[in-house]
Amino acid sequence: KMLGRVLCTVLFMGALPSLAEVSQGHISVVLLGATGDLAKKYLWQGLFQLYMDQVSSGHSFTFHGAALTALEPGQRLMFDVLKKLACPPDEPPNRCAVLKDQFLKLSQYHQLKTAENYTVLNREIETLLRQEGLKEAGRIFYFSVPPFAYTEIARHINSSCRPPPGAWLRVVLEKPFGHDLASAQQLAAELTSFFREEEMYRVDHYLGKQAVAHILPFRDQNRQFLDPIWNQHHVERVEIVLKETVDAKGRTSFYEQYGVIRDVLQNHLTEALMFLTMELPANVSRAEEVLQCKLQAFQSLRGLEKNSAVLGQYQAYASQVQEELQKAQDYISTTPTFAGVLIHSDSLRWEGVPFLLTSGKALDERVGYVRVLFKNRAYCTQSETLRDAGHSQCKAKQIIFYIGHGVLNTPAVLVSRNLFRPVMPEGSWKEAVGQSDLHVFGQPLSDYYVYSPVKERDAYSVLISNIYHGRKDFFITTENLLASWGFWTPLLDSISHQPLRLYPGGVENQHLLDFEMVSGEVAFTLAEPVELLNPNRLTPSDYRTIQSKFRQSPLVSAWSEDLISQLASDIEKTASRTVARSGQFHLALSGGSSPVVLFQRLARHHYAFPWKHTHIWLVDERCVPLTDTESNFLSLHNHLLQSVRVPYFNIHPMPVHLNQRLCVEEDRGTELYAKEIMALVANSSFDLVLLGVGTDGHTASLFPHSEYGLEGAQTVVLTESPVKPHQRMSLSLPLINKARQVFVLVLGKGKHDITTLISRVGHEPRKWPISGVSPSSGQLVWYVDYEALLG
Amino acid sequence: KMLGRVLCTVLFMGALPSLAEVSQGHISVVLLGATGDLAKKYLWQGLFQLYMDQVSSGHSFTFHGAALTALEPGQRLMFDVLKKLACPPDEPPNRCAVLKDQFLKLSQYHQLKTAENYTVLNREIETLLRQEGLKEAGRIFYFSVPPFAYTEIARHINSSCRPPPGAWLRVVLEKPFGHDLASAQQLAAELTSFFREEEMYRVDHYLGKQAVAHILPFRDQNRQFLDPIWNQHHVERVEIVLKETVDAKGRTSFYEQYGVIRDVLQNHLTEALMFLTMELPANVSRAEEVLQCKLQAFQSLRGLEKNSAVLGQYQAYASQVQEELQKAQDYISTTPTFAGVLIHSDSLRWEGVPFLLTSGKALDERVGYVRVLFKNRAYCTQSETLRDAGHSQCKAKQIIFYIGHGVLNTPAVLVSRNLFRPVMPEGSWKEAVGQSDLHVFGQPLSDYYVYSPVKERDAYSVLISNIYHGRKDFFITTENLLASWGFWTPLLDSISHQPLRLYPGGVENQHLLDFEMVSGEVAFTLAEPVELLNPNRLTPSDYRTIQSKFRQSPLVSAWSEDLISQLASDIEKTASRTVARSGQFHLALSGGSSPVVLFQRLARHHYAFPWKHTHIWLVDERCVPLTDTESNFLSLHNHLLQSVRVPYFNIHPMPVHLNQRLCVEEDRGTELYAKEIMALVANSSFDLVLLGVGTDGHTASLFPHSEYGLEGAQTVVLTESPVKPHQRMSLSLPLINKARQVFVLVLGKGKHDITTLISRVGHEPRKWPISGVSPSSGQLVWYVDYEALLG
Repeated sequence: KMLGRVLCTVLFMGALPSLAEVSQGHISVVLLGATGDLAKKYLWQGLFQLYMDQVSSGHSFTFHGAALTALEPGQRLMFDVLKKLACPPDEPPNRCAVLKDQFLKLSQYHQLKTAENYTVLNREIETLLRQEGLKEAGRIFYFSVPPFAYTEIARHINSSCRPPPGAWLRVVLEKPFGHDLASAQQLAAELTSFFREEEMYRVDHYLGKQAVAHILPFRDQNRQFLDPIWNQHHVERVEIVLKETVDAKGRTSFYEQYGVIRDVLQNHLTEALMFLTMELPANVSRAEEVLQCKLQAFQSLRGLEKNSAVLGQYQAYASQVQEELQKAQDYISTTPTFAGVLIHSDSLRWEGVPFLLTSGKALDERVGYVRVLFKNRAYCTQSETLRDAGHSQCKAKQIIFYIGHGVLNTPAVLVSRNLFRPVMPEGSWKEAVGQSDLHVFGQPLSDYYVYSPVKERDAYSVLISNIYHGRKDFFITTENLLASWGFWTPLLDSISHQPLRLYPGGVENQHLLDFEMVSGEVAFTLAEPVELLNPNRLTPSDYRTIQSKFRQSPLVSAWSEDLISQLASDIEKTASRTVARSGQFHLALSGGSSPVVLFQRLARHHYAFPWKHTHIWLVDERCVPLTDTESNFLSLHNHLLQSVRVPYFNIHPMPVHLNQRLCVEEDRGTELYAKEIMALVANSSFDLVLLGVGTDGHTASLFPHSEYGLEGAQTVVLTESPVKPHQRMSLSLPLINKARQVFVLVLGKGKHDITTLISRVGHEPRKWPISGVSPSSGQLVWYVDYEALLG
Repeated sequence: KMLGRVLCTVLFMGALPSLAEVSQGHISVVLLGATGDLAKKYLWQGLFQLYMDQVSSGHSFTFHGAALTALEPGQRLMFDVLKKLACPPDEPPNRCAVLKDQFLKLSQYHQLKTAENYTVLNREIETLLRQEGLKEAGRIFYFSVPPFAYTEIARHINSSCRPPPGAWLRVVLEKPFGHDLASAQQLAAELTSFFREEEMYRVDHYLGKQAVAHILPFRDQNRQFLDPIWNQHHVERVEIVLKETVDAKGRTSFYEQYGVIRDVLQNHLTEALMFLTMELPANVSRAEEVLQCKLQAFQSLRGLEKNSAVLGQYQAYASQVQEELQKAQDYISTTPTFAGVLIHSDSLRWEGVPFLLTSGKALDERVGYVRVLFKNRAYCTQSETLRDAGHSQCKAKQIIFYIGHGVLNTPAVLVSRNLFRPVMPEGSWKEAVGQSDLHVFGQPLSDYYVYSPVKERDAYSVLISNIYHGRKDFFITTENLLASWGFWTPLLDSISHQPLRLYPGGVENQHLLDFEMVSGEVAFTLAEPVELLNPNRLTPSDYRTIQSKFRQSPLVSAWSEDLISQLASDIEKTASRTVARSGQFHLALSGGSSPVVLFQRLARHHYAFPWKHTHIWLVDERCVPLTDTESNFLSLHNHLLQSVRVPYFNIHPMPVHLNQRLCVEEDRGTELYAKEIMALVANSSFDLVLLGVGTDGHTASLFPHSEYGLEGAQTVVLTESPVKPHQRMSLSLPLINKARQVFVLVLGKGKHDITTLISRVGHEPRKWPISGVSPSSGQLVWYVDYEALLG
């Protein structure tokens, strides 16, 4: 009945479909949560837009609003929303009025609560189609409901509301899709038991934002310009930003569980990141290829660590939570409302380029953008005052996908005029012309080519259109979702007890949330306000290092960071002095975790180190291939040797891997190493040996009661470790004691007991090999941090 | 007589020295070229300043102007100059007037032409001292004469004018000091036959510019701030610039022989570069240490190539030269009046940082500066419109040594306020306060801490004071001079026939002289105007490389430079494709001289090369230790591996040195290498093998009629070369022919005969091993340069 009327009116309008054309079939759209906020604000309008756009497509439509509310009040609530639907400015008012009338007639409210309700809905759709003599094209179920309701609804749809064979089912899901990898996996598994992958459309409404949706087409259409510059050699940095002025007031029951990273970074900003970093498929409109490239881009992301992020919370948040969630006065929320995260991709294309993802509530402005800043490689000979705007090669070069709000207050694509004039699709983007004295990203607007959409379209209406067209690349597949959670979950875990910087909100934040990149990490630029207030309190440098005695030898002690920096300087000093004296410096280094920080410090801060004249030896090695992650040499290689210029010939890994086998005695690896030492190191006296101490008192790979290496003439020995991998190669104690200098590094609370013990015992190398370290004519210095020394 | 009067007057003034104080001894200053331009403009004023400053030092002075002119006119000319000497503004006028009067009385003109003249001068000085009863402290001879007169004058001074034992001799020399390395060496050798190194003071007046002279003290006094950031990890780029508005008119007879590089870059700008890049000695006021560090910094500079520079000539220069030098209308001058040069230091501290040295005549403004721009590592969360000036971490961070002129019109040191407040010596530099709406280097002046000298002092007066104090670090030692010429001469040689960009001069130059860095080279940003006018003419790239067939395989031919660049690109393409396919790339490289240029090209221009996934193998090796200069591996190491990031494990030198001996059969080096290949290279098929050809038709180390390696199952063999070192290790022909791709590189006239020969012969590997290269299922490509191909 209803549909019959529809078709009559529609035919009446001339431009609308004939009966023959409707033979494309019928589409039923079911909106679950039809009277909720999202539905009111965006979804009904999006469905109405779909109807306006597709009324002549050959498909016929019915729209079924659904909620838990009973029929009568539900119906009234829903039609109150529908009556307010707006006609877009570019639609002829007459046509729109008729279509709106039609849309209302095609829409119906249903109470969907029980299994029975779903069976009835299904029966009604079937009856309607039979009555009108239409074949069914497909059904769309839009879940605009809280995630806890998903499983129940999914079960009902799967068991009672599937369309007949030949027609498709599309279920549209709104985030959150879990709150970490495990919960996302669980939710995905449940949904997968009801729906096939191609039936699920997970919404990230950012993918419907026009500027975000245009990133890939832009990269595709401008390949000629971007191919040479879209890489680490030309891109200086990338900023992906969503700033909000609103806070979480009224939404803390949701927000307190999620926070800014789960709310914005894990989904919206990560998706934008993927569009930027993924390799371009040959055909960007093929969803399959796009998704494949996106997944590869996820795999290239370097894992996040605690210091990859800076976190903040606006000051009023705590009281809002206490009030809204009835928490006690002393309740402390650890939920971040601001985050700045530094991401690196280890792909060849992007290695070394910082991607900064930033979002927060209660900031000074509302704006979203993706900004690609290129390196400036030009020198402009003419005085800056005489340079013309726009084309000077010395002006910053950038490409900005302006998502919306902010000073421009419209989606836009901006390309610096000294880069290139971009190719833009004429039908959908138009060049902004005319004067403006706006400044964006440090430059006047006139320095850019500026494009904005011909029709500004709401993200939901874009997405609903793409659901209709089955464009799955506008949605989040299960694989994509899990890849993203897999990437973010370790950070979320590691920061759960991280202190948050409190910020007042709005312009008052000033520089409090500025942050800086240092050696692959980020940190707030300003010290904690509390530190700023007390400039007279004892500063760390006042008690930085103490010098004393330990086992009759010099002891240097400090907090671990200062200790490492002191040790690195002392090593450099020894190296420079030794090279000045003898032309070369023979340094033997231990494996283990403590030296890693030292290696990094040497690589990043000691530019005058005489690496060219330094020989690197290993104190000990595990019997694994050099490229094994357990290898001491691999750690040394990755944290130090890769970053400095030690000549190839001066690097002496232990020969634990000979004839394709590990530490087999007849391969004589120990002999080989001993000979190499004899041939190169004068008198076999290393200039400096760096040692550590194990909790059992072992040093090098010389373990208590070891058969070899504690005494005797052998200089390099095979030993057995009580922990895996058991087999080791090690310098012997007598060889170590021939060194000109021995530094022993001991770090951390875990070493407190052994430190205390060996401070008291005498020379008992069989019990505690470390106690046997006593250079016969060289110097021994202990570097022990406060935690190891004082517990 | 003269001196007696001086002392009386001086004593009369109270503040001036007593007779006892003058016991420091007497200093005679002889200014050769006393009536020339430089003397008129700067030197006499500088000597007067010295007298004013040092009148109370305990030294007494006499000043002897000298020239070739006869006594009477010379005297008159000289005193005309002296009468115009100015009193500096900070000197009390009374005191100055008295001192000026004294100074005139202490000054005397001499004609110095013949040997006799010098003997007379010497006698006069001796007589005067004897009469006044003074001991002699030293003599300064200031050479303000053309360099061709140096030797003659030096000989006379050495033979007739040396002071008695116990007193010092200082000879001050003005540039030019040669016009290339050879001429500088010759001049230095001549001077060295007359003077000891410590007696020579070579002037580079830039070292007397207050801002330049303060670079080292600034670095020293601000170590605490600079230590962490004065390196490649923090510095984005450095610009060292001297722009002039004047042209060479009236000076072309000098300029036409020198040009901008010899006139400004080789000396002034290079010295500033050294002050920036050198390691700081512990004590920056010890000349010895400073000079030592400077020489080390020279050694770290990467050699310049033709494309390290862009060159220009202002349009009027040609006609000025024709006119002033009476050249024919068709005379073409190849002298650059503008140069932009990109310099890299390969020290650990500066690796990768571009140093741009720029200078030119007839530019749009007169200004000199040294600008250190730091990388911006901050993200500022607050909207740019709300950020306060100066302290925002998102503003550019820079340190500028402003040499003079330009918008500031004073020497200055500027430090961005968001960097640090510098420590400046209070006596000599004062902070500039007060408002200014000037913009410098893209930022308002208020973004900087700005310091200017308390007393602005002319460079020559600074230098003359330093000659007096014997501060040799303000002058150019012979070693320093030769290091600088050693650095610049290869560039000067390579560009002598380089085309110059013509520029109109002044603001009309617009963007014509802007240049850009690309892969370690520089190029003008705008295409040649003539190219802009004639877009259709044949461009060099049209005939750059020809593609053809050679021995039934593809042939690529070009001039050697283009050929190498094509080959390097082709290798990179193969590498990227192979890594994309299989995750790794096995590359076997030959030794010899031809590949060196290729190695350098790969190291410097191919940043996207997948080195991390590349394995490097040797095609052949000489039986010498790897560190021997004859070793193929050493050459590969120094020219390629040192500059790229191939993991240690992926580098596979041939094991020619086992058990402390070379290529002994029972050490089974060949077997070891064969096993390594089998273990790592799938099917022992290298992805790419690079070969060369010897004039006898050998390739790899497979020589004609070799017993091993031309056929058979052995993959790695020991062979005998007809030339030393005779013993070699080589991949065998059958193994080479298993490769997926083989590139053969043939360069130079010397290879023309063998190239012609092998183009005609068939498969005869025993006669010509190269003819046996024929990959069974891979591809063979010949890269032969025009000289080898065409003779």
